[in-house]
Amino acid sequence: MAEEELYYKEITPSGFGIAIKLKEVLFSEYSKYQKVEILQSDSKLGKILTLDDLMMATEGDEYFYHEMIAHIPMMNHPCPKTVLVIGGGDGGTVREVLKHKTVEKVVLCDMVIEVSKKYLPTIACELDNPKVEIKVEDAIEYIKDKKDMFDIILIDSTDPMGPGVGLFTEEFYTNVKESLKKGGIMVAQSESPVANEDEIKHMYSLLKKVFPIVSSYTSPIPTYPGGYWAWAFCSETVEPLSYIDEKRCEEITKQCKIYNKDYHMARFALPTFLDDLTQA
Amino acid sequence: MAEEELYYKEITPSGFGIAIKLKEVLFSEYSKYQKVEILQSDSKLGKILTLDDLMMATEGDEYFYHEMIAHIPMMNHPCPKTVLVIGGGDGGTVREVLKHKTVEKVVLCDMVIEVSKKYLPTIACELDNPKVEIKVEDAIEYIKDKKDMFDIILIDSTDPMGPGVGLFTEEFYTNVKESLKKGGIMVAQSESPVANEDEIKHMYSLLKKVFPIVSSYTSPIPTYPGGYWAWAFCSETVEPLSYIDEKRCEEITKQCKIYNKDYHMARFALPTFLDDLTQA
Repeated sequence: MAEEELYYKEITPSGFGIAIKLKEVLFSEYSKYQKVEILQSDSKLGKILTLDDLMMATEGDEYFYHEMIAHIPMMNHPCPKTVLVIGGGDGGTVREVLKHKTVEKVVLCDMVIEVSKKYLPTIACELDNPKVEIKVEDAIEYIKDKKDMFDIILIDSTDPMGPGVGLFTEEFYTNVKESLKKGGIMVAQSESPVANEDEIKHMYSLLKKVFPIVSSYTSPIPTYPGGYWAWAFCSETVEPLSYIDEKRCEEITKQCKIYNKDYHMARFALPTFLDDLTQA
Repeated sequence: MAEEELYYKEITPSGFGIAIKLKEVLFSEYSKYQKVEILQSDSKLGKILTLDDLMMATEGDEYFYHEMIAHIPMMNHPCPKTVLVIGGGDGGTVREVLKHKTVEKVVLCDMVIEVSKKYLPTIACELDNPKVEIKVEDAIEYIKDKKDMFDIILIDSTDPMGPGVGLFTEEFYTNVKESLKKGGIMVAQSESPVANEDEIKHMYSLLKKVFPIVSSYTSPIPTYPGGYWAWAFCSETVEPLSYIDEKRCEEITKQCKIYNKDYHMARFALPTFLDDLTQA
């Protein structure tokens, strides 16, 4: 081909990953913390947000990630009122959390708010909701003195490199645990079972030092390398699938593309190799 | 970068897909039916088989596909003795089928046998097993006069284009149904839920004209575009999950990287959008 086509490629250290045809780069800037880009894909994926050249979300398939990080823990809590989202500045997780009518307050602690509001309005659509309090600050500092405040904490972080490293430590997880109310649940994105085996092993071993209950659940995400993602479900007292709010489940299923009760119930059944990795 | 790196890229018509770093092309030939290539990846994926430039299998992650196409229907049958595999010349499906000690005979009907035996020995390892009968011929012709012969038929085909088209027709499915014994099950690969929506809709509408029972199940496959795959489970009389052979299940779980009973039971819980596509 005479003219080289423009692709976004994200290749993991193991040598494989994803490729997306691009039209143009719409926004590119180095913030205090990281490189932030908005890319226009030449596909049904629409616009793409990357941080430090790593895929965060596409308009076309973001719901694969956001429905799973939010509704699995939210539905497992009888009445989630206060929610903390760490990372997730694109707003997708907040949007899903607010589908639960029990919610009175969501605190979003991240840096990438304004660019998301401007370029990704279908994802960031709830960031101006009066229930949402935005903290443009370092989550590691923010969490230190918040005791017994949240029913649900969602760690919607980048990968464990650069500014994300501090979100994968025993100290941070301990502070998160102390910020949870009685009966609270933390869910953290826990990387790709097929591209980040070492990171998964390390992360789950840390989580188990802090939380008595640590489980893993998975779901596909087409535009993350490996196409398959895991989340850690952690709590002092709440077992996964110990509760599902039937009425909320019905209401929220109607508003989702992925989430439904059967799909929820099936999420904690892991492939054997991942069970081994997270139990190691 | 001064030197352009070599990548295998498979981009779906929707503009996104997978990229794998390559070392070299080991084999490239046009057979009577299709272009056959063996690529050496520069990754833990090892060697790669492509047909007509479409990913068929990598040494590194082939078990994601082969365990799922084989063990879901095999375990749902109380005593599968005779199995037909259409396509699947790499041998991975046959290898998984033969883990079931009940099996007396596997017929493999495909064209790509010799190249797989030479380049992909860990996948093709059972192709010389005396229980295996290899038919290097057109499956569409082969199936026409086989009445009441197989307990399980697995359609391990390429995509519905080129030589694969005839494997996605009402006539072919009807012949497959008539080749099944009483209590028999057919499973066919049914494309990517996130890259082949139209093909899925069309395929399931045809299957429902032929089989009274048609269900879909899914699992991730890291190196297929979209990273997420669906299979159609079809039968005249057998509902999915109506039976699981507990003893065989235990034995085979020990020999698998993905498959286990919980994972099996969870496979038919579909994301809402796919439930809609396959029910349409």
